[in-house]
Amino acid sequence: MKHNHFTFEIQAYQGRARAGIFHTPHGIIETPVFAPVGTQASVKAVTPNQLTELGASLILSNTYHLYLRPGDELVREMGGLHNFMNWSFPILTDSGGFQVFSLADSRQVDQDGVTFKSHIDGSLHHLTPEKAIAIQENLGADIIMAFDECAEPYNHRYITQAMERTHIWAERCLRAKTRHDQALFGIIQGGVFKDLRIQSAEFITSLGFPGHAIGGLSVGETKEEMLSVLDAIDTTLPQDKPRYLMGVGTPEDLVNCINRGVDIFDSVFPTRLARHNTAILRTGARLNVMNASYARDSLPLDETCDCYACRNFSRAYLRHLILAKEMLAATLLSIHNLRTLILITKDVRTNIFSGKYPEFVETFNKNFREGQN
Amino acid sequence: MKHNHFTFEIQAYQGRARAGIFHTPHGIIETPVFAPVGTQASVKAVTPNQLTELGASLILSNTYHLYLRPGDELVREMGGLHNFMNWSFPILTDSGGFQVFSLADSRQVDQDGVTFKSHIDGSLHHLTPEKAIAIQENLGADIIMAFDECAEPYNHRYITQAMERTHIWAERCLRAKTRHDQALFGIIQGGVFKDLRIQSAEFITSLGFPGHAIGGLSVGETKEEMLSVLDAIDTTLPQDKPRYLMGVGTPEDLVNCINRGVDIFDSVFPTRLARHNTAILRTGARLNVMNASYARDSLPLDETCDCYACRNFSRAYLRHLILAKEMLAATLLSIHNLRTLILITKDVRTNIFSGKYPEFVETFNKNFREGQN
Repeated sequence: MKHNHFTFEIQAYQGRARAGIFHTPHGIIETPVFAPVGTQASVKAVTPNQLTELGASLILSNTYHLYLRPGDELVREMGGLHNFMNWSFPILTDSGGFQVFSLADSRQVDQDGVTFKSHIDGSLHHLTPEKAIAIQENLGADIIMAFDECAEPYNHRYITQAMERTHIWAERCLRAKTRHDQALFGIIQGGVFKDLRIQSAEFITSLGFPGHAIGGLSVGETKEEMLSVLDAIDTTLPQDKPRYLMGVGTPEDLVNCINRGVDIFDSVFPTRLARHNTAILRTGARLNVMNASYARDSLPLDETCDCYACRNFSRAYLRHLILAKEMLAATLLSIHNLRTLILITKDVRTNIFSGKYPEFVETFNKNFREGQN
Repeated sequence: MKHNHFTFEIQAYQGRARAGIFHTPHGIIETPVFAPVGTQASVKAVTPNQLTELGASLILSNTYHLYLRPGDELVREMGGLHNFMNWSFPILTDSGGFQVFSLADSRQVDQDGVTFKSHIDGSLHHLTPEKAIAIQENLGADIIMAFDECAEPYNHRYITQAMERTHIWAERCLRAKTRHDQALFGIIQGGVFKDLRIQSAEFITSLGFPGHAIGGLSVGETKEEMLSVLDAIDTTLPQDKPRYLMGVGTPEDLVNCINRGVDIFDSVFPTRLARHNTAILRTGARLNVMNASYARDSLPLDETCDCYACRNFSRAYLRHLILAKEMLAATLLSIHNLRTLILITKDVRTNIFSGKYPEFVETFNKNFREGQN
């Protein structure tokens, strides 16, 4: 298996934090990177043009959703996901595992794979490692993910079984893969248990994937537990391959996980918060735009932000749009929140290059804690 | 009263159709023009940047809605409507009359004005000609409208009373007006009755307004009745002032009313149709994007269209967005439908300049009728 397209250059280190460039068939990704989520082949309320303008380089889309609707065969017929959704830059698809295991009562797992009921029409489907790869090959993302089992993070016995299944499935995914223009990442599981995480990291990194994901976090565990998993596996993960922390994406998590060596993040957090009338500030603080104190506030959401919303609209106008139930509110807040996360990754890169990342982290965390009070 | 800002140059005639330029403090409007509607200071699902890109020159906003929410005083404090909604090109506000009279059971009219209940919180409000002008002066649009009474089009006795009240109110609006950077248009009423329409046109045009609107149409009357009203008042309206047909905006109405001398149109039609999954084609035909036959259709909505949606997305993708309930569907369809109406006005101007407008109207109507079958 060749990964000629997928070289990863690390440009600078500071402690465990790294600034790098990951090459893909659809262009480069400067890391650390935050990937907006377009679950159903659309980042909610935002056009590809707006995504490009706000500086997105990598976006994520969900295999589970696209497999069910419109169907991966249809996407392939339409020229693949890049062409279908008009995004000519890198795309990452997950394997469908996380969504399928989130279905709880509507799925059944065995060694072969998972049988589940569609949330759309209740129809029965069977997803296996081979099927997850075939779907992702039809979709055609640059980065695709191994099919894994996400278990509740605190049940050691179940987590062990799920991890072992995930390891077998990782090997099956590697064997099933046929395209050379996609990078398949392996996923490390093991819940909050350090012994299992290390065991999983040792196994998964032995398989020669071009990148590694840390799955099953940000699912209810504490921040300390999440960070301690990153600490536990740090030396097991090869330095020269990108590290992707799946589903994580608050500003404070970005800053602290980059400080522990993570390169890639994705989360619906910024766009979901936008649709709940909340702006994320560069400091990590959240601003509830519905607050009556903004009714006549002519300031932008964040004076340090250069996004389309902040350059052109006041808090008063955004609050009006929300009260008037205008869709434009979700668009402008999504643009702002996504830009803010991207600006934070840019701040991080600048500080890694200038050798001031520890101070940046300390100041960020101090300001963030004070903003919470 | 001066209207130095508001000269109207007619560049070419063909029959009664005219191509012209209307000058306003926020730039020129090439006529015939179609104005997208931003009821609550937002053209639904579309950003001002996207409106500029699709070629909008004039947009309309509603006095009734903005008076109730966020309030015209607040808009004035925020620098006026142009600044509040970030639209630096011409804006037209209606007088609130149409919306208030649409409230039916929740309003009471007398010689002074109208008392009505807010649709938002049931609070009581009193709107008079003087108040409608004061609100519109706070909003600060380039073109503002006299306060008029819209009556059911078929009740001759009531229509007569409403028209007479509208005439008195028109004079009161002129007296109430204080700003010199806004053009106040008078509104001609009279339902479907030619005698009343001529009487109203004679009275309103005698008052020296810089432009004239035809109100109370597109409210349930037949197309023939609408067109015959335009025929009836044609010679009474001065040639050298713009003519605005309020609330009208299907492609076929544009083409046929321009042929009867109308210069300005507005309607929620294109954006409302967009939110009901329907694309308007350059021929005037409507395309229901939900139709199963488009599931794997890689064509754009309209191959003759140059909008952002048609340049970048297939019918299959748009259909997927609709089925997946993604907001982006409304944005892309709104952009397309607005661009289509603007392209039709551009087609019209080109044909007026080249002396081929009668042929254009004939071909358009023929194709449109055939498309209906």
